[in-house]
Amino acid sequence: MKVAIVIFDKFTDLDLWLMWDLLNRVRLENWEVKILGEKETHLSATNIEVKTTGRIDEANQADAVLFVSGQGTRDRITDENWLAKFNLNPEKQLIGSICSGSLILAKLGLLEGKTATTYPTSKTVLESFGIEVVEKPCVVHGNVATAGGCLAQQYLIGWVIENLVDKDWADLVVKAIQPVGEGLFFADAPNLTKLYAPLTKANAKV
Amino acid sequence: MKVAIVIFDKFTDLDLWLMWDLLNRVRLENWEVKILGEKETHLSATNIEVKTTGRIDEANQADAVLFVSGQGTRDRITDENWLAKFNLNPEKQLIGSICSGSLILAKLGLLEGKTATTYPTSKTVLESFGIEVVEKPCVVHGNVATAGGCLAQQYLIGWVIENLVDKDWADLVVKAIQPVGEGLFFADAPNLTKLYAPLTKANAKV
Repeated sequence: MKVAIVIFDKFTDLDLWLMWDLLNRVRLENWEVKILGEKETHLSATNIEVKTTGRIDEANQADAVLFVSGQGTRDRITDENWLAKFNLNPEKQLIGSICSGSLILAKLGLLEGKTATTYPTSKTVLESFGIEVVEKPCVVHGNVATAGGCLAQQYLIGWVIENLVDKDWADLVVKAIQPVGEGLFFADAPNLTKLYAPLTKANAKV
Repeated sequence: MKVAIVIFDKFTDLDLWLMWDLLNRVRLENWEVKILGEKETHLSATNIEVKTTGRIDEANQADAVLFVSGQGTRDRITDENWLAKFNLNPEKQLIGSICSGSLILAKLGLLEGKTATTYPTSKTVLESFGIEVVEKPCVVHGNVATAGGCLAQQYLIGWVIENLVDKDWADLVVKAIQPVGEGLFFADAPNLTKLYAPLTKANAKV
């Protein structure tokens, strides 16, 4: 199972690293998470240099493809060469976005006839593409999901893990990052050790 | 105002990047956030190479010092040379930790006679240092705060920003990452533009 996170220059740091961290808590042998970009490194919104581990065309073969957000999405949605590299298939792939990543999904034609969510400052742009925007943290239609507000990544990634692995892994991974006393408790300690254990065989659904 | 985030090898990715991202949303001229380490780069728990922007002794002059967490804390708390580089002053500095970063605060003598919180899998170690551990997301005693569970960083960083800047900036920064419909709303869009505005003069409290 391969999960691809697509980044670009001027991405919001948290929108890469929250999903990256959550996805990497899954301890299964054939579970692979890649950071894809059009260059060997991309600069975040705060000028952090991040190495990519593959090019964006690899997204077309991934089991799940996730788009990050940030000011950089404004350049991506007008870059037809960049957009043309994607040939995603929502019949076979899970496809998701956080915040303004939804603008890319819209430009790729993946939100046609669907409702979606996005970051508040991107709502009018997404609406200008003819998409009905709803005020929800995560909107799922079949294999396509949009999430809005950085911390809504926990719903988006929970959905990815539940669909690619199972609900137990999804619940455990999302629980593991909750504030103590607010979703995560000291009594959970024994269960959390599963997240640090050696890799185990996956019971893949895909 | 200088905020220092102290990292080390095998740190939890999210425990650096959530606080980094939040702190960098403050748009004030004299606001500086640094990533300190004992080397030019450190490797995260998922083998991401992160460049530091200063050495750990700089923490001694910062207005706020924050310790990340991860499996790497187990090595830090037995490294007397590393611990000896810190000469922190809770009378003059804000000092905080996320998850197992509390073990470092304890070893530095900053939690003596105080209650504290930590990650569930670090509770027994923290207790072995004679600290009373309470099941709360964020425990504040004067200028020293411990937070437990990655997402509790929002309370920790809210506390830092409120004390170094003001409550309006703290509230806005924390609101900006909430899930849409759950703390962040489309009607907030005009206020969020403040987070992308040119730098403004700080009304520093420190």
